[in-house]
Amino acid sequence: VNEKITTGTVNRSTLSGIGLVSVLNDNSSRKVACLHGKVASDGNDGQLCDAVIILEKKPFDQNNLQQLLSKKTKLTVDLQNDIYSTFTAFPPPELSDIKATIICPATEKHIRKYTKQKSFIVQETASDYQNITLPYLEKQIAANVFNIQWVFNILEHKVESERIIYEDPDKENGFILLPDMKWDRVDKTALYVIAIPHKRGLRSLRDLSAEHIPLLENILTKGLAVIEEKFGLKSSELRVYFHYQPSYYHLHIHFNNVELDMPGTGALRAHLLADVIENLTLSGNYYRNKTFTFELRENDNLYLEFQRCGKV
Amino acid sequence: VNEKITTGTVNRSTLSGIGLVSVLNDNSSRKVACLHGKVASDGNDGQLCDAVIILEKKPFDQNNLQQLLSKKTKLTVDLQNDIYSTFTAFPPPELSDIKATIICPATEKHIRKYTKQKSFIVQETASDYQNITLPYLEKQIAANVFNIQWVFNILEHKVESERIIYEDPDKENGFILLPDMKWDRVDKTALYVIAIPHKRGLRSLRDLSAEHIPLLENILTKGLAVIEEKFGLKSSELRVYFHYQPSYYHLHIHFNNVELDMPGTGALRAHLLADVIENLTLSGNYYRNKTFTFELRENDNLYLEFQRCGKV
Repeated sequence: VNEKITTGTVNRSTLSGIGLVSVLNDNSSRKVACLHGKVASDGNDGQLCDAVIILEKKPFDQNNLQQLLSKKTKLTVDLQNDIYSTFTAFPPPELSDIKATIICPATEKHIRKYTKQKSFIVQETASDYQNITLPYLEKQIAANVFNIQWVFNILEHKVESERIIYEDPDKENGFILLPDMKWDRVDKTALYVIAIPHKRGLRSLRDLSAEHIPLLENILTKGLAVIEEKFGLKSSELRVYFHYQPSYYHLHIHFNNVELDMPGTGALRAHLLADVIENLTLSGNYYRNKTFTFELRENDNLYLEFQRCGKV
Repeated sequence: VNEKITTGTVNRSTLSGIGLVSVLNDNSSRKVACLHGKVASDGNDGQLCDAVIILEKKPFDQNNLQQLLSKKTKLTVDLQNDIYSTFTAFPPPELSDIKATIICPATEKHIRKYTKQKSFIVQETASDYQNITLPYLEKQIAANVFNIQWVFNILEHKVESERIIYEDPDKENGFILLPDMKWDRVDKTALYVIAIPHKRGLRSLRDLSAEHIPLLENILTKGLAVIEEKFGLKSSELRVYFHYQPSYYHLHIHFNNVELDMPGTGALRAHLLADVIENLTLSGNYYRNKTFTFELRENDNLYLEFQRCGKV
């Protein structure tokens, strides 16, 4: 047989030679599957390598839609009822492209990263924060695991200064506005910017009290004005919120287009800036006293801390 | 030419003969496109009919994954960097099936229904509620547009009594628990149940005050206990919340599996029951005084009312 043995990822022209070990994750609404596979190694030593394969169906391409609506796309009828008909359609390969990412060789850690993690809801009272979350954060910061030097580098113009959209340099109430990594700075339908206050020592929503209302109002007012001026989106088109728990512990605020359907905007994680200002006006220690309800993955270290303390 | 002219939906075996008029909606994360097309009518009178075509890529079928990982799936390389490679993959038609729904002939109303509606964020102060929302609701109720007789029928066991999961008959603090229409009552990973209080006259979160805390605590405690007992899901696996604005104006509470990725769980609409109880404990009139921030579609009648009053 003249057929070349497909190995690893080098010179690969088909998906042949990948043995399916297991499905790590399957998102049926977003049409993404993460697989664990075994592939012959590039070294040609007959060894099998672990691989992670991420498959994602592509969105419909608006330029190819008329081609899709043609005799090239075969149908089988599933259901016909009056004006409604449902079919299974089989478009030709050139109109059915999917995005395939192969990580090979993959380590245990890669496999774990792409494996579906069960989430659990945790309730963090004010005393849980003092006794569990805060000591955990301080330990992680001391061990340099939660390093926020990169945030200070931005605030001090040591890096990314060309990415700054706007700056109010005031040390108490000022902030820097810059695009989130997920935004290309061009497509305003995907607008996503982050406001980072200059003030140090505010780790999260938990640290806010009535004295921070001027800072928050400043960010809300100027942030919205700058986004309208530079990108043409009005306040009625923007979602403005904190995360709790945040992904890093220097206070920051998310501004994004309300049309964007994205993770992290759910009631279990997002707290609207307008609500935060109103709550602090009602009770200066609102967020210091609040019981927060949020979701943690079962392998999250904070979840393990809550478990160790018998709280979940 | 021997080729049969494809008309309407009858005997259709391909997607040929559909002229693309416009893309009505395109959800790139869920891979769904809604199209307006023109089709030759089934009547063979040479007329063109309006049609709505809804195309949705199917999730990966776990039974066909090994077949997909074969030489039948051709690749082109997009990027190679160390252990990471990204490809565009072209699976054969039998592994690329999509769901196609055709509505033909489609009316103006069908076309509007499937057209993307822009959403806007609205802020409703306590006085906006009194001056705009409440008069609007009362007018709709008087005109029988917002009819909640179906809720009373459930509470009075006139309909759906066989669907009741649990009932606490108390007139002040009691409630009925029943499956949401979207749940099949079997698959606990998709669990979705609704609690409807017996008490009349509570339209939404806006009407709640400190006196309703016993009702809310009763629903939370008994609702969670019943769901754990009957379906084996613990409180740490459940999202429990109100909608504001709700879809109907008799107070009700959503319980669903936190693993479910579904609309209506965002911070702009969902209010966690645990937070509601805590806020009412802090301030009995919390929700009567609150400024609510929520999203309305541009063709929503309530949005048009806010617009008429110069509030958006």
